[in-house]
Amino acid sequence: MRKSNYFLKTRKETPSDATLISHKLMIRTSMIKQTTSGIYAWLPLGLKVLKKIENIIRDVQNLFGCQEILMPTIQQSDLWKKTGRYNDYGPEMLKFLDRNKKELLYGPTNEELITNIFKDYVNSYKDLPKNLYQIQWKFRDEIRPRFGIMRCREFLMKDNYSFDLTADAAKKSYDNMFKCYLKTFQSMGLRAIPVKADSGAIGGDMSHEFHIISESGDTKIIYDKKIDTLKDLTSESSYKILRNIHSVTEEKYDESDCSLKKKDIVIKKGIEVGHIFFFGTKYSSSLNTYVLDKNGKKINVEMGSYGIGVSRLVAAIIESSHDKDGIIWPKEVSPFDIGLINLNPKDKKLTKISDNLYLTLKKNNKDVLYDDTFESPGNKFADMDLIGIPNQIIIGKKNVENNNLEIKNRKKNKLTKVNLKNINQIFKQLN
Amino acid sequence: MRKSNYFLKTRKETPSDATLISHKLMIRTSMIKQTTSGIYAWLPLGLKVLKKIENIIRDVQNLFGCQEILMPTIQQSDLWKKTGRYNDYGPEMLKFLDRNKKELLYGPTNEELITNIFKDYVNSYKDLPKNLYQIQWKFRDEIRPRFGIMRCREFLMKDNYSFDLTADAAKKSYDNMFKCYLKTFQSMGLRAIPVKADSGAIGGDMSHEFHIISESGDTKIIYDKKIDTLKDLTSESSYKILRNIHSVTEEKYDESDCSLKKKDIVIKKGIEVGHIFFFGTKYSSSLNTYVLDKNGKKINVEMGSYGIGVSRLVAAIIESSHDKDGIIWPKEVSPFDIGLINLNPKDKKLTKISDNLYLTLKKNNKDVLYDDTFESPGNKFADMDLIGIPNQIIIGKKNVENNNLEIKNRKKNKLTKVNLKNINQIFKQLN
Repeated sequence: MRKSNYFLKTRKETPSDATLISHKLMIRTSMIKQTTSGIYAWLPLGLKVLKKIENIIRDVQNLFGCQEILMPTIQQSDLWKKTGRYNDYGPEMLKFLDRNKKELLYGPTNEELITNIFKDYVNSYKDLPKNLYQIQWKFRDEIRPRFGIMRCREFLMKDNYSFDLTADAAKKSYDNMFKCYLKTFQSMGLRAIPVKADSGAIGGDMSHEFHIISESGDTKIIYDKKIDTLKDLTSESSYKILRNIHSVTEEKYDESDCSLKKKDIVIKKGIEVGHIFFFGTKYSSSLNTYVLDKNGKKINVEMGSYGIGVSRLVAAIIESSHDKDGIIWPKEVSPFDIGLINLNPKDKKLTKISDNLYLTLKKNNKDVLYDDTFESPGNKFADMDLIGIPNQIIIGKKNVENNNLEIKNRKKNKLTKVNLKNINQIFKQLN
Repeated sequence: MRKSNYFLKTRKETPSDATLISHKLMIRTSMIKQTTSGIYAWLPLGLKVLKKIENIIRDVQNLFGCQEILMPTIQQSDLWKKTGRYNDYGPEMLKFLDRNKKELLYGPTNEELITNIFKDYVNSYKDLPKNLYQIQWKFRDEIRPRFGIMRCREFLMKDNYSFDLTADAAKKSYDNMFKCYLKTFQSMGLRAIPVKADSGAIGGDMSHEFHIISESGDTKIIYDKKIDTLKDLTSESSYKILRNIHSVTEEKYDESDCSLKKKDIVIKKGIEVGHIFFFGTKYSSSLNTYVLDKNGKKINVEMGSYGIGVSRLVAAIIESSHDKDGIIWPKEVSPFDIGLINLNPKDKKLTKISDNLYLTLKKNNKDVLYDDTFESPGNKFADMDLIGIPNQIIIGKKNVENNNLEIKNRKKNKLTKVNLKNINQIFKQLN
């Protein structure tokens, strides 16, 4: 994509309510634009990252045996009345009437609806287990939306739901999703720590949140320092440790229940990016949802639900990966693979070299943001650092005179000179 | 995907309100489930088709220079009041209050919001033209939702918006989208005919609808029979003819304006799948949106908007491609490439052959629905025909004894015997 044609405009100023670094950087890079309180439009640069995160989540969900569906954003009140949550959910649920005065709501979560869908298609134990997921917009009418997309009202969430015959089988489904989440976050270049948590409005008696450690996190988490020594959170041995080790949210912390010595305890701030729940027959019993077992007996299905904040992850990743100059995208979710800078588009030689390289990179399936604008070199460098693409290729007069170009590793802030005709060497230097 | 594990349940009965064949077939194949009046959930089989259509649209939008963004589903009333559409749009617009009594609405279309977004980032003629699109859920509170997803309330739409300095440039953008739409529908294996149309609630003085011919269409279209002789609607010569030939909706038909002889007129029923509008400065003037021209003069941008009914297309394709046994998917949008039927999973030899072939096909990037269930052969054949995958591979005892399998072309209803070890020959027979 040529920057001269791209719907992208970086800026230096940020709105006064933007206190969080991710909020500031997303506004400054025109990833998002607020359209009204707590509601945002995703502009091209932001949407690319959102889609990458969405696709990683989708791939890992599929890998773990989940099947994708899509529920509507708007639901009727009837099922929520049956489970009692129409009133219990509170004022965060956006309720309204349609033109025929029927009570509707914008789904803040989907346990009721999915249970009702399941009921219509599955009636035998032979069809279990099942695990259905969706990636869909939700609305929660926050009393005080803030922190950009971190605590907004309309947000993108991956939610899935498991259905099993027995509580034991359901716990296996829960463990499967526990592993799925470790894998999902790692696939984005993130380290997310599972902690025992309260189950809140969803209900049930087993629940974990997944947290990214960040100074700006709004939850305190307390965990055994052994976790910080685990290299690969997705290995089977790490899983066993993470599933059994002491690791909880502050709400859930009980000193009398914690046998750890003070020196073995880590207390950090985390940003919640995932939350999983096992709640047994809470919804299947109130919505009369059962399968027939081997003996033809009606059994209420045992359920769990599992959420990942897809849009929130964009901000969480920025919180955990930036420096004073801007964002540093993990390559897995970076909006582009390479930022190519032509330092002087008025120089025909530089432009020819840059244009050719742009085409070569595209032919090799590299997604490139090509700065072909007439901005000053200083502005170009600052913009590219701000946007945070992991690799920059810089075409400038001095280097070109020596048949070189420069490759900058954004994270290490390291420049490497490479012969500009040596494409293999260029590829080797890329992240 | 093994059918035994897939969230799919075909049925013979359909709800009494399902009169349209696409509605019936989508219910019978468990592509969709109604959750309340005019609102549907998309189940795995339906969502796969929806995503394929969405991706084709996205690819062609990108090819024609449009850039993807994503606007929220919920908007505030203020911009709609400025353009006068808050009242003018009528009761199809779903309006409600949030917890702070702010007036919100679920976007039925997005001219106001996109104009306001554009305004924030573009202020020079140098940045024009621009064309932004999104694929997002919309809500229109139909008084009488019917025909399944063909006339429902929550629906997926691709909408894009062009911004130009002059009316002439804007008309070029309009023509570019005209071509883009011809290409889009052809890429789905569809033939969609452009007709001059009224511009309704969007406004403006130039508008075309794109129609798929179908007996079940609810719009009469009247056009020069030359159109039916055009082989490739996307060629430059076809474009010139289509852009200038007599072709209108019934509403727009004016006998005194039509110089065609009776014998040269075709009158058919069409299903609207796309609609494009040029409306000049209608929104940019009421929302005070301008750029500075070469001389620093403020110029209200000239705009057009362009819609494709993404979810509606799923039904429209079925309407135009089915037979008495079920759906016949064009291969471009088929939920799977191949339906593989093991006629008797209790037979170890058949199962080994089927399992191996399933793996081989998957390795070759074929998406396969593998019927490994214990249903009767009759049910398996009926189900596979109903679902409508273009290619079926049938593994049965008699043929296997002669080292053969059968490949069925769903559309031609033609069976071909192929040596089951000859993978190349199998691939050659596939659509």
